[in-house]
Amino acid sequence: MALIAFLGFSNFAQGQPPRGPIVVSPKVNPDKTVTFSFLAPTATTILLDGNQFGSANVPMTKGENGVWSITVGPVKPDIYPYGFKVDGVTVNDPANTYLFPNERFKGSLVEIPSDSPAIYALQNVPHGSITYEYYPSVEGSTGTVVVYTPAGYSKETAKKYPVYYLISGTTDTEETFWKVGKVHLMLDNMIAHGKAKPMIVVMPYGNPMARIAEQTGKDKPSDVMSRDGEDALKRMKLFETDLITNIIPYVEKNYRVIANRDNRAIGGFSRGGGQTLRAAFNNVDKFAYVCSYASYISPAEMDKSFTNITANPAKTNKDFKLLWSGIGTEDFLYKGTTEWEAYLKDKKINVKTYAIPGGHTWMNVKQYLNETLPILFK
Amino acid sequence: MALIAFLGFSNFAQGQPPRGPIVVSPKVNPDKTVTFSFLAPTATTILLDGNQFGSANVPMTKGENGVWSITVGPVKPDIYPYGFKVDGVTVNDPANTYLFPNERFKGSLVEIPSDSPAIYALQNVPHGSITYEYYPSVEGSTGTVVVYTPAGYSKETAKKYPVYYLISGTTDTEETFWKVGKVHLMLDNMIAHGKAKPMIVVMPYGNPMARIAEQTGKDKPSDVMSRDGEDALKRMKLFETDLITNIIPYVEKNYRVIANRDNRAIGGFSRGGGQTLRAAFNNVDKFAYVCSYASYISPAEMDKSFTNITANPAKTNKDFKLLWSGIGTEDFLYKGTTEWEAYLKDKKINVKTYAIPGGHTWMNVKQYLNETLPILFK
Repeated sequence: MALIAFLGFSNFAQGQPPRGPIVVSPKVNPDKTVTFSFLAPTATTILLDGNQFGSANVPMTKGENGVWSITVGPVKPDIYPYGFKVDGVTVNDPANTYLFPNERFKGSLVEIPSDSPAIYALQNVPHGSITYEYYPSVEGSTGTVVVYTPAGYSKETAKKYPVYYLISGTTDTEETFWKVGKVHLMLDNMIAHGKAKPMIVVMPYGNPMARIAEQTGKDKPSDVMSRDGEDALKRMKLFETDLITNIIPYVEKNYRVIANRDNRAIGGFSRGGGQTLRAAFNNVDKFAYVCSYASYISPAEMDKSFTNITANPAKTNKDFKLLWSGIGTEDFLYKGTTEWEAYLKDKKINVKTYAIPGGHTWMNVKQYLNETLPILFK
Repeated sequence: MALIAFLGFSNFAQGQPPRGPIVVSPKVNPDKTVTFSFLAPTATTILLDGNQFGSANVPMTKGENGVWSITVGPVKPDIYPYGFKVDGVTVNDPANTYLFPNERFKGSLVEIPSDSPAIYALQNVPHGSITYEYYPSVEGSTGTVVVYTPAGYSKETAKKYPVYYLISGTTDTEETFWKVGKVHLMLDNMIAHGKAKPMIVVMPYGNPMARIAEQTGKDKPSDVMSRDGEDALKRMKLFETDLITNIIPYVEKNYRVIANRDNRAIGGFSRGGGQTLRAAFNNVDKFAYVCSYASYISPAEMDKSFTNITANPAKTNKDFKLLWSGIGTEDFLYKGTTEWEAYLKDKKINVKTYAIPGGHTWMNVKQYLNETLPILFK
């Protein structure tokens, strides 16, 4: 990057040596209001796009030297995405290093701290590690997977751990569950306080078709799926193949894991929840714990494809030590999810259900993690 | 994030269910031209900001459904940053997951592949791992450091490795040297072909003051430094303190490293080069290999602060098995760097110098890595 050494600006970003003020944004104030600032001398209108904390399309005010700003809130403690709408185009906050990893949008993130540390807060406890690995993936591609190992893992040589395979949603990447979902800090905190079993968490990338396209120069496929179309199912199957034939063997070869179904859990959010349920139902021998975060399978698909699960509920209830489904009451998938839960109960299949306020958001995902991480492998 | 499940768009990004085409950008064509596309129905003017591949401020054309696009090149194979100027405001490419980690700008990156694999290309060789660690840092803050371990590290229990401490530039983060500099892939390739010694690379964050501010709620300091002002030196000293008293002990406690000066190297780019030189000259007992990528210390500061280095050249030449300085002939630090190199030579201090075309860019940094990684610890 063309940086003016020691001056902290790039020719790329500025086209010239630094001019104007250094913007600090976001700034969380003691009263939990948040001040957002954005340097844009040439823009006509700038709106704060913070709909997830009740600040959708709030006009910002242009101040001296072309810095636009707005203070909103107080905001309920959590981690929220936001952006700026520059003349109608949503962009992230150039002054904020904390970005939302995603294929389709580049939102920034702001954390409003709680008075008492949040379940996902960085606390003074022993910390695990986050490791990025390359592995041989489907169709000759090289995959990337992110692995959480609990504190102490690297110092031991014999101890083995159970594994939670955790799949993020449509357009999310292998980075989203730790950089946004904070699963690593939640487990650091829970393990330190004896609330969760020490475990390894494996976070794959849920969209291998896009990666194959990138590596082969093929046209990149749309990552937009119909909810239950052929294309969606075909691509979920490709992910399932990658998980079962590549990712799990790679992890079990390279990490100290207890390689049996009683010590293997699978979960995911949104599309990752759909991939979770299909992978678990197609591979009953592989996973004993199954967590769906804001997802479901339609009764029609259940009847068509998963009679192996419904035909013998006694066996299914014995196979799955946990079948968990969580959803927000304002989630646009609430109706489909509750219908699926009712379908399972009607079939005498034990499903642990959890409904809380909130929508199809990563704020809710952290709540689902908070409910499920403590009951895995127990 | 509010995602329309299986539909791949966010309420945050769109404010509504998906509309319009799915943009694929960038698209590298077989003839090495590159097509950039950006969905912005409401924007008035959009320019491609690709000055590092000769496409500064190239007007894009608005097509159907509000998608702007432009094809440029052919472009010389390398990895380049770019963005879009939306009505004068530089933004990244929302369709591209490959971002430039930085405090002050949010550029996107495009890789133009070579006909024969580049030195930094993902190749079919054994791959090392990239691990993110938390460590106890200065002023009670918790630091983040990124660690490269070579292929096979996790499977061994006894083998120990030399360590290269590698510091990125002003406004870069602990992620920049691997996500942009590709030091991990370069070492994977070099180690596989016997061209570099297997080593661990430790990549700290060079701006602890900003992290302390974030964690304590203090006002975030400007990250803009005068080149040799008191503030710059004070902050470099804070980093040096963190490196010597926190980072090195953490690494030597938690990784299998050979903990002596002959197996410790330090290097950095831009401000990180300045931090490298001062840390090495202030701690001659700690580092035997020193690499400055596009940086220097002024003769005035050398005379004032580093007579310990210049007074006894025979000792200095024995202490440092390598003192390396690389610079681009179009780098705005070329003059200062060559003056410093001449100063050292005049003082009879052995410095290995390397000058190539190019500016203060990460394309050049990869060339400096290519020159220095093979000669470390030999």
